[in-house]
Order: sequence, then structure tokens, then C-alpha cells
Amino acid sequence: MALTLATRMSHLEASEIREILKLTARPEVISFAGGLPAPELFPIEEIKEAGRLVLEEAGASALQYTTTEGLAALRAWISERMNRRVGTHYTADQVLITSGSQQAIDLSGKVFLDEGDVVVCESPTYLAAISAFKAYACAFAEVETDDDGMVMEDLERVLKTTKNCRIIYTVPNFQNPTGRTWSTERRKRLAELAAEYQVAVLEDDPYGELRFEGDFLPSVKSFDEAGVVLSLGTFSKILCPGMRIAWIAGDAELIRQYVLVKQGTDLQCNTMAQMEIVKYLERNDIEAHIARIRETYKRRCHLMLKCLGEELPGNMATFTRPQGGLFVWVELPPDINARDLLLKCLEQNVAFVPGGAFFPNSRKENTFRMNFSNMPEERIIEGVRRLGVALRTM
Amino acid sequence: MALTLATRMSHLEASEIREILKLTARPEVISFAGGLPAPELFPIEEIKEAGRLVLEEAGASALQYTTTEGLAALRAWISERMNRRVGTHYTADQVLITSGSQQAIDLSGKVFLDEGDVVVCESPTYLAAISAFKAYACAFAEVETDDDGMVMEDLERVLKTTKNCRIIYTVPNFQNPTGRTWSTERRKRLAELAAEYQVAVLEDDPYGELRFEGDFLPSVKSFDEAGVVLSLGTFSKILCPGMRIAWIAGDAELIRQYVLVKQGTDLQCNTMAQMEIVKYLERNDIEAHIARIRETYKRRCHLMLKCLGEELPGNMATFTRPQGGLFVWVELPPDINARDLLLKCLEQNVAFVPGGAFFPNSRKENTFRMNFSNMPEERIIEGVRRLGVALRTM
Repeated sequence: MALTLATRMSHLEASEIREILKLTARPEVISFAGGLPAPELFPIEEIKEAGRLVLEEAGASALQYTTTEGLAALRAWISERMNRRVGTHYTADQVLITSGSQQAIDLSGKVFLDEGDVVVCESPTYLAAISAFKAYACAFAEVETDDDGMVMEDLERVLKTTKNCRIIYTVPNFQNPTGRTWSTERRKRLAELAAEYQVAVLEDDPYGELRFEGDFLPSVKSFDEAGVVLSLGTFSKILCPGMRIAWIAGDAELIRQYVLVKQGTDLQCNTMAQMEIVKYLERNDIEAHIARIRETYKRRCHLMLKCLGEELPGNMATFTRPQGGLFVWVELPPDINARDLLLKCLEQNVAFVPGGAFFPNSRKENTFRMNFSNMPEERIIEGVRRLGVALRTM
Repeated sequence: MALTLATRMSHLEASEIREILKLTARPEVISFAGGLPAPELFPIEEIKEAGRLVLEEAGASALQYTTTEGLAALRAWISERMNRRVGTHYTADQVLITSGSQQAIDLSGKVFLDEGDVVVCESPTYLAAISAFKAYACAFAEVETDDDGMVMEDLERVLKTTKNCRIIYTVPNFQNPTGRTWSTERRKRLAELAAEYQVAVLEDDPYGELRFEGDFLPSVKSFDEAGVVLSLGTFSKILCPGMRIAWIAGDAELIRQYVLVKQGTDLQCNTMAQMEIVKYLERNDIEAHIARIRETYKRRCHLMLKCLGEELPGNMATFTRPQGGLFVWVELPPDINARDLLLKCLEQNVAFVPGGAFFPNSRKENTFRMNFSNMPEERIIEGVRRLGVALRTM
């Protein structure tokens, strides 16, 4: 190909997860690789009924163009629920509907990043956020992370010594990939430091509702007096991901900038999907639905932790103990490369995501991510058993 | 707001059309401003039935994540139809499903444009393409255009004398905003020049199916021996825009780059919407449906041209005579500013889009765009009558 591509194209690689997912699409594979919700919990009948009613009542307007900002009723529901759940004070017009949280991350890159600007993130961080930001030719600063979230002294050091920090990207609840949750104190301190150094915070919270033990904690946004924190949320994990309906909320003036950028990017989100979700929420008890998801994920998570404890030799692996979400994070001795382990596992039809790609700079290859939400219990038992066998041969 | 935004944000403005559309949402306004298809032609019952069947047959997989590339069956239908209609030779895997053609334009900016690179376009050109490209901090080179499309001598001059031309953006059928259609000879010559100068061509064809008189012409892509032309198409104008399902097709290696970029941008398009369209296409005769759209738009277009001829003083306005699509383009004497005319018209509850914003550099303010697809016939008559009154007072 002789056409000249943009410089950014030389930084992009195919998402490791999505490439692995292609390998693992065969039904015989026990895959802990994806971040897929349990499809058997999707409220298919309720969504079918919502779809029928929307087309009956709204008719052609469900199929026509709508505003870039998104459906007013949906934005109102989102702001009210956030205010009740996580201590924010949003109005409906501070919410922009996005095509998945992935788009909210991409739009953030467009709004904030010039070439060479720095995104500050947890080490490790969400893989697809790295891909999204890389398209804006940014650099990354990884912040040391422990069981309570980012280490604040290290964050302050980074902010103090790094020029052009523009975004601090975080997943404070049941983080992807580690499953870890930030303490309240760290959330408060993050809001203070972001205000002091005037850096935007993206508080990405796809899993916050999926807490199956311990107490719900206030959001970083609830401590934000300077208007520098933006909240990302999604229906992907509490309803279904196929509709691609998510949101970003924040300071009104900032959200206006996002609307401007979304106009040029894809005009608007699917009209019908937005109306269907509003109709679903009117007619169904989403609390009860989310409670069922939590119950299932709790069982699967506990089972996976039990199996990992039994099957992985104690001197060979440590792993996190999430209180919610979709993921467990495993660390091996420094000389074992999780990619080699994956190759062995794939021979046994078991898959996971090697951890290296979750570190934008440091690439710790002795780590991997296990998803527990998507596999039924008997497959979790069998899959971790095979993983243990593979690991012991190394 | 003290946060530092990306430099690109200083180039972006709210889309003039979408701002005008907000003003014209009141039902008493006769709006020729939008580019909306006629909602009374949306096949609501058929789409309702398709939705029901998809959830009945595919169940949870209709609500789950799917591939970035899009649904295989949909990509196959698109490639076959293009090959039959416009002389291309695409395979299904050369097609990427996008969230509207707007996203295909945005992704093209991401794939091809570094800061300062040049997008070559018709003068005037599609407003929202200008917004999309501007986010990549590019420059524009406008090419002189007549009733047969871009003037090839002027295009060659631009390509010869301009550094870093990366994209030639065109709408060869019933162009937005002018309604003009390129001759076959110019299409062929464009493919030759693009190959010679190694510049990618975006052949954006949202309206090609909506030809209500004259012969269908071969696509620019059908003359492309060098693999430099990309084809953009959409279901927005032949089915409905609210689903946000469109596509880009091209050289396989190039499309792989687009897939990579779309992964980071929004992962994938709405799963359910893709399945619904496939189901709709299986169960319904889209040819008959498109024939009904053509028939309606033809009537509305002819009526609008007749009214413009009667109501606009001959020495005050010239206008194009489209053979398809959605738009007529009006040119006034150089000393009349269409923005002033719009203000007068808005007092009479009539709206259109002033033409200046369709020129990325030259801004000819004595022009405006009229949409004929979205208004019923009695409102076209009354709206153009009021337009004539307003114009005569100037």
C-alpha cells in the first residue's frame, strides 16, 4: 500500500483481547479472556416488549435522527440515579449519551490531548483505554497501585515532575484488570490533587453497581469541588452491552465541548436503543435485575477464588480478591511469562488475557487477567483445573 | 474553566445545521434546513417484526458484544449489493460496519491525517465532513465545481501544487449541499488522478440509491485500479437513520487499519440494530421500499423546483435541478447574505441552511441549501411562498 497514513497509525496494534477472543470463539474453549457479562441474565423478554412498545407509541421518531446530547428522559434517569447512588449533584443536561464507555474515553482523548501530552493511569490499567488514548499520540505515566488504589504519594510525584499531564484515568471500583477498589480516603485525595494540579479526572465506573460484598463507597466526583472530575458509566454491565449505550457526565461547560466533538465523530447514538432503555426502566425493576447479576457473579467469583487457591501452587501465584465486578488478577513469579502459559492453556482449550498489555510502559509479563462473569460454574472448575495443570508443567 | 484543552478544540464550532435544527423543532416551523428523510416512509411495522424475530431467534447474542468488523451476514449483503449496483468487486471482509457515515468520515481522519495535512474537497462540500476532519487539525483545498462535478483541471492543479494532500472527499451522487451529480468521465478521471498522486478518495454515497430520473452511473471505485478509493454507504436514507448503521469498504489492508482504529474508538456498532437490518432484508423487498422513497422525493423535488421558479424573482436567484437525493442549492446575487434572509424567514417560521459554512475556506454567503425530502407537499408550497416574500423585501 503506497498511501501515506497518519503517524498515529504506527502506534496502534490490534487489541490483544479482541484477537484472543477470535481464537476462543469455538464453543469447546473455556474462556476467561473476555469481559463479557453473563448472557443468560439478559432480560430478553423485557427488552423485546420495550422494543414493541417504543415502535407502537413513538413510531417513526424512534427511527429518525435525534439530538447529539441524547434522549432527555434517559439523561434525567442517569443523573438522578448517580446522585442517589454515588453522591454527585448532576442535572440531566450535564450528561452526554455515548456509544459505550469506549467512546467516552475516545472523546476525552479528542477533547484534552495534543501530541505528547500525558495520560496518568493506574499500573496496570484498562487495555482499551490505552488503545483509545494512543490514537492521540500521547504518552503515559503509570502510578504505583496497591490494594487501596493508586498510591497518592506516587501520584503527587508524577503530577509534580511531569509536564503536560492532561488526564488522570481511573477505574476506582473493581478495576479492570485487577478487580481492586479504591479506599474512600484515596478518592478524596485524588479529587484534591486533580484540583491542585488542574488535571481532568476520568472516573470510569462500569462495574460499580456490581458490588457483591462490602459497602458502596462515594465516588471521586462527590469530592470534586473544582469541577475537574468527569464520570463515565454504562448500561453494558447492568443491562446489556450490545446496545452500546453509555454516558459521560461532568461540568456543564466541559460537556458542551464533548457534545461538539461527538457531533463531528458520529452525530448521535442509536435513537431506538435509547428509547428502549427508557421504556425498559419505566416498566421493570432494574434493582431486582442488578441484584440477580450480583448474586450470580458473587457465586462465580467465590468459586473461581476457591479453585485458584486449590489448583495454583501457593509458591507459584498470588491473586486479588475482588468484592465485585468481573475480574481477578493473577501474578506469577517474575521468570514466568503469562504468554507462554497462555499458549499451553490454549492447547487445553482454556484462555485468559496475559497481563503485559495492561501496562502502557512497564509491561509486567508475569501477570494475567481472569474473567469470572461469563462462564457457568462447572466450566470455571474445569478451566482452572486445566490452568493449574498447565502451570505446574512450567 | 481552567483545564487545558487540546489545540483542536479551538477550531471546532457547533454545527450550524444542528443549532438551526434546535430552533426549528417547533411544529409550526416549515423547515427546509435538516437532511432528514421522510419519516412517514419508515417501515415501522416491518422493523418491529424484525426486532421481535431477532430476539426470538438469536436471543441473548443480539444483546451481547460482537466483532468490531460487524455482522458477517450484513457485510455480505452490502458487498453483493454494491457489486451489482455500482460496479465494484468487494468481498464481505472488505466492508466495515460504522456508526453512520459520519463515523466513517471521522475514522478516515484518524487513519490518514496528521496535523496540517490537506483534505481536498468539492466547493462547496458536506458541512459535517468539514467538522469531522477539523478535529484532526487539517487544512482544506477547495476544488472548483460545476454541474458535472469537480473540474478535473482544477483538481490536478491542486494535487500538483499542494503538499501533503491525504484525502479527496467527494459526494458524486446528488451532492450535499448542491444536489449535483458527477459525469462518468469525471469519475474515471478522478480515479486516475488519485492513483497518480497516491491520495485516498472517500467516495461518500448516501443518496446514490435515491435517483428519481436519469440513469444510474458507475461509481468512482469501479474505475479504481490502484486500490486508493474507499466507498462509504449507509442505511440512513434507504431505511432509517436512527439505527446508525452505515459502512466503509475498500482495499483489504486499508480496511484492517480502519478496524484497528474503530476498536479504540467505540469497539463495535449496536449488535441488535445490525441483526434487525439483516432480518428486515431477508423478509422484505427493499427495492420496492426504495422505489416508494424515490417516488415521493421526486414529487417533492419537482414541486419545490416549480415553486422556486414561480416565487423567486428570476434576477434574484438561480438554483440546481437535482435528479435525486435530498437537496436543492440556491445562489443569490453576491450582495445578499443568506444569513440575513434566514433571519427574515425565521420570523415567518421558515428555515433553511445558509451556504457559507459549506465552504471550508471561501465562505460564499450568498448561497443556501433547501431540503425537499422531509416536508409534505402543502408545506413546500407555503414555505417557498414565504421565502419568496422574505426575499423580495430585501
